[in-house]
Amino acid sequence: MSAQHHAQPYTLGIAGLGTVGCGVLGILQSTGDEIAARIGRPVRIKTVSAKTRNKERPVDIARYEWVDDALAMADDPEIDCIVELIGGADGPARALVEKALKNGKHVVSANKALIAFHGPDIAALAEGKNLFFGFEAAVAGGIPAIKALRESLAGNRMTGIAGILNGTCNYILTVMRETGRPFEDVLKDAQALGYAEADPSFDIDGIDAAHKLAILCSIAFGVKIDFSTLPVTGIRHIQAGDITYASKLGYRIKLLGLARRDRKGNISIGVEPFFVDATSQIAAVENVFNAVMYDADPVGRIMLVGRGAGAGPTASAVMSDILDGARGNFVPLYAQPAANLVPLDKSFLAHQLEGESRFYLRLRVLDIPGVVADVTTVFKNYQISISTVIQEGRDPGQPVDLVFVLHEAAEKAVRDACRNLADLQSVLEAPTAIRILDL
Amino acid sequence: MSAQHHAQPYTLGIAGLGTVGCGVLGILQSTGDEIAARIGRPVRIKTVSAKTRNKERPVDIARYEWVDDALAMADDPEIDCIVELIGGADGPARALVEKALKNGKHVVSANKALIAFHGPDIAALAEGKNLFFGFEAAVAGGIPAIKALRESLAGNRMTGIAGILNGTCNYILTVMRETGRPFEDVLKDAQALGYAEADPSFDIDGIDAAHKLAILCSIAFGVKIDFSTLPVTGIRHIQAGDITYASKLGYRIKLLGLARRDRKGNISIGVEPFFVDATSQIAAVENVFNAVMYDADPVGRIMLVGRGAGAGPTASAVMSDILDGARGNFVPLYAQPAANLVPLDKSFLAHQLEGESRFYLRLRVLDIPGVVADVTTVFKNYQISISTVIQEGRDPGQPVDLVFVLHEAAEKAVRDACRNLADLQSVLEAPTAIRILDL
Repeated sequence: MSAQHHAQPYTLGIAGLGTVGCGVLGILQSTGDEIAARIGRPVRIKTVSAKTRNKERPVDIARYEWVDDALAMADDPEIDCIVELIGGADGPARALVEKALKNGKHVVSANKALIAFHGPDIAALAEGKNLFFGFEAAVAGGIPAIKALRESLAGNRMTGIAGILNGTCNYILTVMRETGRPFEDVLKDAQALGYAEADPSFDIDGIDAAHKLAILCSIAFGVKIDFSTLPVTGIRHIQAGDITYASKLGYRIKLLGLARRDRKGNISIGVEPFFVDATSQIAAVENVFNAVMYDADPVGRIMLVGRGAGAGPTASAVMSDILDGARGNFVPLYAQPAANLVPLDKSFLAHQLEGESRFYLRLRVLDIPGVVADVTTVFKNYQISISTVIQEGRDPGQPVDLVFVLHEAAEKAVRDACRNLADLQSVLEAPTAIRILDL
Repeated sequence: MSAQHHAQPYTLGIAGLGTVGCGVLGILQSTGDEIAARIGRPVRIKTVSAKTRNKERPVDIARYEWVDDALAMADDPEIDCIVELIGGADGPARALVEKALKNGKHVVSANKALIAFHGPDIAALAEGKNLFFGFEAAVAGGIPAIKALRESLAGNRMTGIAGILNGTCNYILTVMRETGRPFEDVLKDAQALGYAEADPSFDIDGIDAAHKLAILCSIAFGVKIDFSTLPVTGIRHIQAGDITYASKLGYRIKLLGLARRDRKGNISIGVEPFFVDATSQIAAVENVFNAVMYDADPVGRIMLVGRGAGAGPTASAVMSDILDGARGNFVPLYAQPAANLVPLDKSFLAHQLEGESRFYLRLRVLDIPGVVADVTTVFKNYQISISTVIQEGRDPGQPVDLVFVLHEAAEKAVRDACRNLADLQSVLEAPTAIRILDL
């Protein structure tokens, strides 16, 4: 229904006043009148709640009602929409969301863990009461990844998703490339700049990207995903040398969330670093920027790029959901009734391992006669053929890098060959194998 | 309102059965059941109309009611939504759209000329009756440029738009760069491939891009644009040499639609070729791909990339609007009531000419002693300073290229200097000046 027929204000309760919460307050304080003129209805914050009431904040909160317990907002009959910015898959965030929906309130949330773990239950709750649950901010920050998928591509059959879904990893890989510095050093810088957490594993081991990928796949392919079955590899093992060789070979390394649906309907899904062509559109997405690429029939490929985190981009996405709710414009959480979702079981993993691709493979070897023959014999045994070999410099008896680009090979063959290579006396470290992706 | 509460089919009348119309029929014939399950409501085509009934088409039209006069569909009480794919700013397309809206039907259209010239009137008509007018397909084909702007960025204050909005021009510039061939040759190829019309001026002179830019600006900045005041330059004058020098200097040439709103609210707008950094995200958008870049507060920058034309991408965008209508999810044509739009008068042009930027400048000169001194004296007279000079090879007495990169200078000073340079005896052609854009 169109906006101008609402005269009533759309009334919010906001739980969580960190940078994103304060960002939303700031937008409504500075441009609330413009927004009301645009959508034909004022958006009013009635109540706010956070852990600590008295704290230095960039916006004035004294003009709003305060409650110590955010749950109280879910009982307020004046509130139309609860904005949950508390975070966490369970605990107070989940309790608030569930109570709000049960009490007939729309909900907007930036909480990807909550959706990754409890999305189908929340969707069923919202649909049963004809309520909106918005979570644009949960995936790729300011990029309209969710709206594009569940609205703009609604007439398409999705075939693939590829995304740079974690800004911390993309920042680290970009700086490693630009400076030639090792992973650990650049990670420390990222922590100092606030781009990485004190415990960085959630980001750099790919878990955050996997949460987001799982959410996108559920919408795109109509599947429920058991998180424990998702193959996830982060960027901890990427060495400065890998980045340098990638550049020399005409590639860049990107941590991608990747999902594909083939013609038979089989879905493969995973998060890992890939070699991508240095001249490709996705390679140009650098630093803390995120990107989401959708392949669909008949649209072909579309790519969306923007900042994946930070107060401004995230608050923008939260506002987009708030205003959709205020306009009465909304679609089900998974773009279709949650009851239609099909569980995606472990069988899809087998499918992924059967896929063929080209590979980059780096070995740390002793520079002794015969090492190349030993290594290439292993490839031969697995029927893997070699496209390029690089061995820079000579250092007899010392450790050197031996780098291969392999022709199309089955992933399983390459992994098995790597285990065999690791057993060779002249190979000093576990080999690093990275898939080359033609995007 | 959410989808599952509609049981009634959403009934369409489709006018125009070219590639896009047949694309929409194809989608609904092949995936109509999936779509119905997703949105909770069947989408049914009742009636179709086109110039010729009996014609080879890739889809079966015998299953639908046929009318010779598309206007008859606007009188059919069973039809909820008219899909106008006739084209043209006036004539039967406009008559159909207006009659449909007057009779209480939603309208979906891919007709950018209609919107560029009559958008505000159509918007007023639709708003008065609380109807949806969707035109996602009119700008940048399969890219959700309109939805992102009027929904995802609804909580933002827009500050800029930069777009590769014409696939024909982007294709020609890409092929010129890749092959070194001249404009006229590549244009002929593009015509043979169906990427350019027999009369290519609408595309290559920037008019098509200007229509799209005007539509985006109206939504982004809430302005009505008098088309005749828009400064538009196409790519006809770009020579193979310009492309080569751009590459040598680290740039690519892109025809961009550009609009900026400064802090005082002044808006500058225009279409012209620009030098953009070869490593920038927008430079990586090649061939027939389009891109739209939005700068907004607080989201920062987002960029959307995809195919800007073709049956599949356009049909995808048309479907997106059809399904928004079926779900009852829609916003006003300009994201706000049409009555709020402010006319953008000629004053904004002055603003753009006052802006400063760096410039690429190529002169065709006689290779005689003193020519560089003559040219640089003109720059000096206009207080323009030089960053780089390239003169490749020597060919005494013969025509050679003399290429300059200029430091930040007022556009007016550069244009005036160019007029002066053209008057020099040793300068053989009108100089080519192209702005360098830092994106």
